[in-house]
Amino acid sequence: MSEIDRGHAQRLMQAEGLDALVLFQPEAFRYAIGAPAGVATMWGRAGAAIALVPADPGEKLAAIASDHAAPTIARMAPEVDLRTHRIWIDQIDLGAVTSLDEINAAYPDESARTPRPETFDRDTCFALLFDLLRARGLDRARIGVDLDFMPAADFAALTKAVPSPIWTDGSLCLRRLRAVKNPGEILRLRQASAAAEAGLIRMAQAVSDGVESAALSAAWKTGAAEAAAQGGFSLSGTWDYISVGPDLNDLKARVERGALIKADVGTLVDGYSSDGARSYCFGSPSPVALSVFGALEEAFEAGVAALRPGMRFKDVHATMQAAVRRQGLSRYDRGHFGHSVGAAVGIEEWPFFSADSTEVLAPNMVVALEAPFYGQGLGALMIEDMFLITQTGAERISTLPRGLLVLG
Amino acid sequence: MSEIDRGHAQRLMQAEGLDALVLFQPEAFRYAIGAPAGVATMWGRAGAAIALVPADPGEKLAAIASDHAAPTIARMAPEVDLRTHRIWIDQIDLGAVTSLDEINAAYPDESARTPRPETFDRDTCFALLFDLLRARGLDRARIGVDLDFMPAADFAALTKAVPSPIWTDGSLCLRRLRAVKNPGEILRLRQASAAAEAGLIRMAQAVSDGVESAALSAAWKTGAAEAAAQGGFSLSGTWDYISVGPDLNDLKARVERGALIKADVGTLVDGYSSDGARSYCFGSPSPVALSVFGALEEAFEAGVAALRPGMRFKDVHATMQAAVRRQGLSRYDRGHFGHSVGAAVGIEEWPFFSADSTEVLAPNMVVALEAPFYGQGLGALMIEDMFLITQTGAERISTLPRGLLVLG
Repeated sequence: MSEIDRGHAQRLMQAEGLDALVLFQPEAFRYAIGAPAGVATMWGRAGAAIALVPADPGEKLAAIASDHAAPTIARMAPEVDLRTHRIWIDQIDLGAVTSLDEINAAYPDESARTPRPETFDRDTCFALLFDLLRARGLDRARIGVDLDFMPAADFAALTKAVPSPIWTDGSLCLRRLRAVKNPGEILRLRQASAAAEAGLIRMAQAVSDGVESAALSAAWKTGAAEAAAQGGFSLSGTWDYISVGPDLNDLKARVERGALIKADVGTLVDGYSSDGARSYCFGSPSPVALSVFGALEEAFEAGVAALRPGMRFKDVHATMQAAVRRQGLSRYDRGHFGHSVGAAVGIEEWPFFSADSTEVLAPNMVVALEAPFYGQGLGALMIEDMFLITQTGAERISTLPRGLLVLG
Repeated sequence: MSEIDRGHAQRLMQAEGLDALVLFQPEAFRYAIGAPAGVATMWGRAGAAIALVPADPGEKLAAIASDHAAPTIARMAPEVDLRTHRIWIDQIDLGAVTSLDEINAAYPDESARTPRPETFDRDTCFALLFDLLRARGLDRARIGVDLDFMPAADFAALTKAVPSPIWTDGSLCLRRLRAVKNPGEILRLRQASAAAEAGLIRMAQAVSDGVESAALSAAWKTGAAEAAAQGGFSLSGTWDYISVGPDLNDLKARVERGALIKADVGTLVDGYSSDGARSYCFGSPSPVALSVFGALEEAFEAGVAALRPGMRFKDVHATMQAAVRRQGLSRYDRGHFGHSVGAAVGIEEWPFFSADSTEVLAPNMVVALEAPFYGQGLGALMIEDMFLITQTGAERISTLPRGLLVLG
């Protein structure tokens, strides 16, 4: 099922004067259509999978996808108007066959098909799109495209093959749409966060003298996977940035007495990634590490207090940057103190808590607030939690205590 | 160290009338510069990392990269002319510090820096590129860009910010360059193939009644990782498409008597991915499965016989398509029978053994030849090996026997 709130999409498109969005990025396709874009998108080229989101909520969503991906899309998103093109994979529905003749008979009629292309045929895909736009009365419309993804070579081909619409950049509209989550998206982000936190508990148990950072990563992954299995959901991926000790470039560092440990980790549920971080010290932290961490804590608390609908992302940045500087890190200068989370390509989804972001916090956004410190020679420290913006404030999704945890 | 043969690059650029390549895709940056592009490329936007490859081999390679990525690049590619921009991460070189004042003192002078941007500042990156092109006398040159990657929104910004060069699509030139491998690249592909094959041996041992496909994937990964560790190299990734039984859409299928098993797998060494496939049957294969596999074997042997310098990729396709049809699969229609392998974004690297590819096989290309059959209701069967094109023919990199292996 599509993740899109069509009413919200309509308002955003109307605000930018768009009649429809036409989306090419596999992740955007999946978001709009509610099914995977298929293997023909593996090279990052545009055209193999295309989603049409009309501004008018009364108009059906439509998709162009490969014959290979189509059965899954038809099953997962039966309400979508689906048009297909042939890709390079020779796959046939056979049932019970006992001879090559029976296999040959299972192929569609020669007359109904063209030879399969090298990978996918971009021209065919664009022709299908043109047909679709004509059928919807959108062939002279103003259409937003995800030009922050679409390769320039493919966009040039699109405007040549489908010249009549007014093609414009719909990236901002799509980002704003995706930043507000529906209940299913929020659930997946909660699950992802819970699995990641279970992994952090397991990781902390694995910390001992001489343990290598790779072993901490493995312990984290095991804890996260077990929590997911117990919770009845599966992880579509994991990522972790775990630093051990004073040398941030030493990827094979081992735990030693006094080492700071920073774990910035996330798991993915159906593509939706959590993002959270905790800090640890093996033995007693130094006074300077405690001072730094205290500044991060103050900044973090100040940021949390600013998380409510109506606040601008830049307000949160200003609050946190000022707080960390007030606490003595007078020259600390961070480009952003967090960001939206979702099913974006990078872990961090737009908007960001940055100095210039005039985007406004709204209910059902899910954000990660972060206060990191990277000191080569001292070590890394970080606090990061996820929050759901509510009607009146923010609900903390993360549950682990935020303090610097002393281990060993 | 750069992977580029500068003489080869010069010949390819001269053939297309290019004075230089300017590359934005992280994978292309890594290939050209010989060091990772850095974390600021995580969103797939262009500008955070830029590589300049002048056609003149006497002119140094140059790179624009983030201050965060720069130390690694300077260490891995000291010969590269490197210019840096600040990204969002506040990271400082401290050494031994005992107070916040000492930390503050470690920051660069206020006057020498601008506030850190939200993520990276594309305008700054493009300005650095303009400076670089001017310094090299290339600011009015004809420059090839990887427009098959660069987002259209970013290319529009580039042509506005750096208007004087003649910007053109350099994608084909870059692909041709990458398709011919240097000894280091060939070594990594050999290692990746060896690890993947060790994994296949382990996987075959794990096949027994009732085993789930996920367990076969796990066994494969374990075998591959152990082989890499024994071989003294590490894997930067793995991928596997393992199908079990007649229902190709059942990702949780279990091994049953008579089930066909197809394992199409690869490991990555330093980003370079192997690609190979083997077929198995748990118990005796049916006569129709044996007939299909026989046709694939004939096609594969015909393809191998055509692998030599001077042959076009389309010749190999024609040979294999004809052979499989001659063997009784008269309507079999596959878009490509293999492809180059390397460190591309998708597993399959251009060129492809497709009906229309006029690209020519040349020494030091590494290719994967494949003959697959996907029959929903019967199962999947596949043969795929890797080959190094030599001066006179092709050396098989894969070592496992290709036959349909009967297990259990």
